[in-house]
Amino acid sequence: DMKVLNVKGELLTIEEARKKPLEVAAANWFATGWLASKLDEDCVVVDVGSTTTSIIPVLNGNVTAKGKNDLEKLMLGELVYTGVLRTNVAAIVSQVPIKGKLVNVSSEFFAQSGDVHLILENIKAKDYTVDTPDGRGVSLNEAAARLSKVVCADLELLTLKEIKTIAKYVYEAQIQQIVEGLKKVIKHFPTLKFKPAYTAGLGGKILAWRALKKAGFKILKDLSKFIGASEAKAAPAFGLAFMGVEFLEGEPKKWRRC
Amino acid sequence: DMKVLNVKGELLTIEEARKKPLEVAAANWFATGWLASKLDEDCVVVDVGSTTTSIIPVLNGNVTAKGKNDLEKLMLGELVYTGVLRTNVAAIVSQVPIKGKLVNVSSEFFAQSGDVHLILENIKAKDYTVDTPDGRGVSLNEAAARLSKVVCADLELLTLKEIKTIAKYVYEAQIQQIVEGLKKVIKHFPTLKFKPAYTAGLGGKILAWRALKKAGFKILKDLSKFIGASEAKAAPAFGLAFMGVEFLEGEPKKWRRC
Repeated sequence: DMKVLNVKGELLTIEEARKKPLEVAAANWFATGWLASKLDEDCVVVDVGSTTTSIIPVLNGNVTAKGKNDLEKLMLGELVYTGVLRTNVAAIVSQVPIKGKLVNVSSEFFAQSGDVHLILENIKAKDYTVDTPDGRGVSLNEAAARLSKVVCADLELLTLKEIKTIAKYVYEAQIQQIVEGLKKVIKHFPTLKFKPAYTAGLGGKILAWRALKKAGFKILKDLSKFIGASEAKAAPAFGLAFMGVEFLEGEPKKWRRC
Repeated sequence: DMKVLNVKGELLTIEEARKKPLEVAAANWFATGWLASKLDEDCVVVDVGSTTTSIIPVLNGNVTAKGKNDLEKLMLGELVYTGVLRTNVAAIVSQVPIKGKLVNVSSEFFAQSGDVHLILENIKAKDYTVDTPDGRGVSLNEAAARLSKVVCADLELLTLKEIKTIAKYVYEAQIQQIVEGLKKVIKHFPTLKFKPAYTAGLGGKILAWRALKKAGFKILKDLSKFIGASEAKAAPAFGLAFMGVEFLEGEPKKWRRC
């Protein structure tokens, strides 16, 4: 029988899901939180995907995220619209530093976060699995050309060093976006700040880890260490598979790979 | 003989233009400044197009813009990447007010400035001459649905009144973007602040006028009053035609329609 996951972490039948469309939309983050809840009864998970970041509070073994839809999650900081590949640089920053001065950026979709992290060697070309804004390749030079275009420049007007300075600035801005989300989530669950924090997703190491440190979390854990790197990068699907097992067998499972 | 306009306001032959590609790229703004220079020896022009805004200083009858390319113009405030139709809302604001609280926006291209100005009745449907982000129509409801999506909402989650509050906020942010550009330009040409200021382009009345007032300019003029509304909305092409006449006849022309 096919089951549909809703935002309360319940597996619904197709008919039940049809009656509650808002509840079942975008509930992937729940599976990731569920996964972490099996490792620590109280924790927070920061799952950084290609486009968005989910911040998932877990208390007493339950996913306690309060947002019932993406609007509420945005308001509560549980959803942060920044990711490691596909985020428009013009939506992350309004200015970037050029020769020591902050310059306003173009509003066009000239470069995305994947370009930033490729330039900074946070990701490899093979990790850059999404379309590029200009349809060109994912070499360092092509990514640098895209990022320079954010200030209407090119590789003749800016040096690679100057473009790396832009990339670092955008990187820090992304971390700050996640820090702001964490602050909002902690406001509702103040004890979480002293609990373990898990990073997950392709941007777990790159963005979540540094954001958690900056936000003052002390016990940082990499979800991939517990379930294997490839599963951690697709934590929602992996969590969902295990939730299915729990649902079918009717009892909670405790498990670790290592 | 075909002539090409460069950023110094010279009409070059094709062969000359080929040798100086940077100079002839994106020199449309010059023609608008030239047009205003025929009306006032000292003035500033704020030309708000669908995607970008040009701020053009004119002194002693000459266009004195300093930026030699778009990067330099961005740095100097002479180019502001905000326009009345095609600007991604996520590149204008990072937050919008919802029920009295500022909420972070999605980084996707869900809505553009044309939606904002249609909702606020600053433009009519017939002025919305560019593609919409979702490929749907330009009715009030369709524009409102797009703008609500900027916070992952829809017309069921937000009322039209709440969406209008978002639109007003984005509108003010666009005005502020142009004010910041004006401040930078005035830094290099302080006397301009006391000279006449011309508005031009489809967003002349909507954005340039209010930005100039906010920046402290006292003598505001609408370029369309002098050359006719339809020409003012395409000031660069119109200016270029007259520049051609001046170039061919070898003498400066003073003219007014009214």
